[in-house]
Amino acid sequence: MTATLQPPGNGGATARAERVIHRCQELALCSEVPDETTRTFLAPSMHRVHTLLGGWMRAAGMEVRVDAAGNLRGLLRAQDPAAPRLLIGSHLDTIPNAGAYDGVLGVVLGVALVDEAGKSLPFAIEVVGFSEEEGVRFSKPFLGSLALIGQLDAPTLARTDRNGVTVAEAIRRFGLNPEELPAAQLDESAFGYVEFHIEQGPVLESEDRALGVVSAIVGQTRMEFTFSGQANHAGTTPMGRLRRDALAATSQWVVEVERYANACPGLVATVGKVEVPAGAGNVITGEVNATLDVRHAQDDIRQAAVRHYIDYASAAGVGRCVTAAHSTSIDQAAVPMDSALAALLADSGLRATGMELHRMTSGAGHDAMIVARRIPAAILFLRSPGGLSHHPDEAIVPGDVEAALATGVEFLRRLRDDRAMLTRLTGQPSQPAPEDLHA
Amino acid sequence: MTATLQPPGNGGATARAERVIHRCQELALCSEVPDETTRTFLAPSMHRVHTLLGGWMRAAGMEVRVDAAGNLRGLLRAQDPAAPRLLIGSHLDTIPNAGAYDGVLGVVLGVALVDEAGKSLPFAIEVVGFSEEEGVRFSKPFLGSLALIGQLDAPTLARTDRNGVTVAEAIRRFGLNPEELPAAQLDESAFGYVEFHIEQGPVLESEDRALGVVSAIVGQTRMEFTFSGQANHAGTTPMGRLRRDALAATSQWVVEVERYANACPGLVATVGKVEVPAGAGNVITGEVNATLDVRHAQDDIRQAAVRHYIDYASAAGVGRCVTAAHSTSIDQAAVPMDSALAALLADSGLRATGMELHRMTSGAGHDAMIVARRIPAAILFLRSPGGLSHHPDEAIVPGDVEAALATGVEFLRRLRDDRAMLTRLTGQPSQPAPEDLHA
Repeated sequence: MTATLQPPGNGGATARAERVIHRCQELALCSEVPDETTRTFLAPSMHRVHTLLGGWMRAAGMEVRVDAAGNLRGLLRAQDPAAPRLLIGSHLDTIPNAGAYDGVLGVVLGVALVDEAGKSLPFAIEVVGFSEEEGVRFSKPFLGSLALIGQLDAPTLARTDRNGVTVAEAIRRFGLNPEELPAAQLDESAFGYVEFHIEQGPVLESEDRALGVVSAIVGQTRMEFTFSGQANHAGTTPMGRLRRDALAATSQWVVEVERYANACPGLVATVGKVEVPAGAGNVITGEVNATLDVRHAQDDIRQAAVRHYIDYASAAGVGRCVTAAHSTSIDQAAVPMDSALAALLADSGLRATGMELHRMTSGAGHDAMIVARRIPAAILFLRSPGGLSHHPDEAIVPGDVEAALATGVEFLRRLRDDRAMLTRLTGQPSQPAPEDLHA
Repeated sequence: MTATLQPPGNGGATARAERVIHRCQELALCSEVPDETTRTFLAPSMHRVHTLLGGWMRAAGMEVRVDAAGNLRGLLRAQDPAAPRLLIGSHLDTIPNAGAYDGVLGVVLGVALVDEAGKSLPFAIEVVGFSEEEGVRFSKPFLGSLALIGQLDAPTLARTDRNGVTVAEAIRRFGLNPEELPAAQLDESAFGYVEFHIEQGPVLESEDRALGVVSAIVGQTRMEFTFSGQANHAGTTPMGRLRRDALAATSQWVVEVERYANACPGLVATVGKVEVPAGAGNVITGEVNATLDVRHAQDDIRQAAVRHYIDYASAAGVGRCVTAAHSTSIDQAAVPMDSALAALLADSGLRATGMELHRMTSGAGHDAMIVARRIPAAILFLRSPGGLSHHPDEAIVPGDVEAALATGVEFLRRLRDDRAMLTRLTGQPSQPAPEDLHA
């Protein structure tokens, strides 16, 4: 796609969408590795991201700061200093060799919405670019949003990266002060959080939809299984009772993991990694390590699946004298998104674009999952061409960006105009509506 | 077990068996790696093996030489210089960190048989300790027996080890001359080859037998399969048509490999190695590499199995949009052992021990497979406790060694006494029988 830089305020739909895309591509050049986009927690390249985004925020009328967790915070104040505050955000970090949209798109879209429709609203808007969501540098995700809700705790601050640098030290090296973390917490007046994010999956594309609204972020179980049999000579050990083939047992289990999930709507279950530590072409496998990833929006369905998979791992070993051991590394409950915010997003999308938004679950975690612990949160997904993400070829459809912008503008307009709605969401009476959103 | 050294000629059954075991253990100390038994082709430690075994051969009345391939050759001449020659042998090299019996046992047993019953026979006996069978140093097995049949060819002599040393250079460095390889070929008078070897499998133990006679060495196919789907996010990609899970397809195939082999008598089929190059717990596997090892004593049955496995690999991928590619690295025909020699061994065993010998195939290759290209060959298996081999804990039952010795003595006695048998085997009239084998 071409990324023609359009002057701000240009009303053309394509132009504003292309500006968002161009900004994402410009941010993708901020990288700690040449010729690719790799930007982990508070790497030096994040300074340039803050400079660029901060400039765009200021041009949109926002006050800009970087909090002690490295989150970039742009605040568009309302006329009334006591007005409630809407948060719009996503993350600024990336996985190694990433694409240009995962995370960053949601922040750039937030700035564009403020630019388009942020003035004279009965609520403030704070656009947050979270410093960390992917978990790459410290093997723990959501450092930025955890700071926002006051849960970036001491054990997390003491975690080290592969060079032995702690989170606290990384914050200091970036020029920030971890002792100021309490001030990073979200304002008392915050009443909701909206995150625009690429889907990172193939569902919207396969449904031929531009946008989706997330009803829940699925719960997730991650496990490690070890199947133990007996290594032996592949030629001299006959089939049957004299073999204890750990790979055959594992394979039967992998097939069942897939079959059970196929039969259970909404469940995804994946064996992503299988290792045969001492594998050789002419040796019966004595031991296999396998991972299991199970996700569902309903925790009881996920837990029943996990129990079945544990039982079946043993069952698959019985006839082969293979035993199965397991451990659980992640057991994370599903997080429902706020139904009122989600409904408002869906309705805004329908009004603004004439298209039904797809109601769906999110199979991956997002900052909204963390923020939802404190305030109502919602996610709007943009279609991922080819279902591709976490890859340099990650893409976005310009028309989908325009649809997201139009949905966001309508969402802000509805919040401005529907006083009962804002009251319900904020728990306080809304300000008088200004005459025109674009005024 | 205790390994009391008994004086030669001691008639006690246990003593002679224990001497064989003790000699194997002494040879196991000849190693290129401290504190383990590792003895690859013409490593310096092989000089000590030649010294020890050569000494025992000479003490048993044999003429000793090392041929240009590094094979140790001990010749017990018959009275008649034109007498036919029986070969008894096995290999002297080992895999890394080996046990004490794989290979060496057959050479030590050969020397013990000559010692016990080699005198005044109407045929000569040549005990051969092959320099190489395991294929460790040059990734090609059977270098010693190939030299014996004149098939250690120029391409093989030009192979290099991991230090860039060729087979020819390794021969020179050991003090031998590769130009003298033609003289390593077996004598025209050789009429048969007998190899005593540990089973390296669990069959004899499971059948509660000490000894087995091999009817054939199975044919063998070794293949590599690659299953290709599409890597994708395990959480955001729903089950069903949007997934192209290469591991699920591979697993269905592995289960079928086992099922088909279970249903086909004598077939063994093993997927020994599965690799997921880019495996991660939360990623659907896009590509899996797997090995396949198929063996059977009848080539048509093996080939039909291979065809089925190739077809099934594709079939397992169809519903998942996963493709399967394959290549074949080994396609080796079965090698029948000589039925007359095998019958004579089995009958000798029954007479000498009162126990039926188990008739079986060999699932692994042995030097006999190579020698059989030129002269009739047979293999006698000794039970492997726990089916264990290629391991420092590889063991042998002293009573089984005694049974093998008694079988060998009876075998030589039968060849001496049954003139019609010897004539059939050698194609020439046998010498007059001396009055007593032990004379």
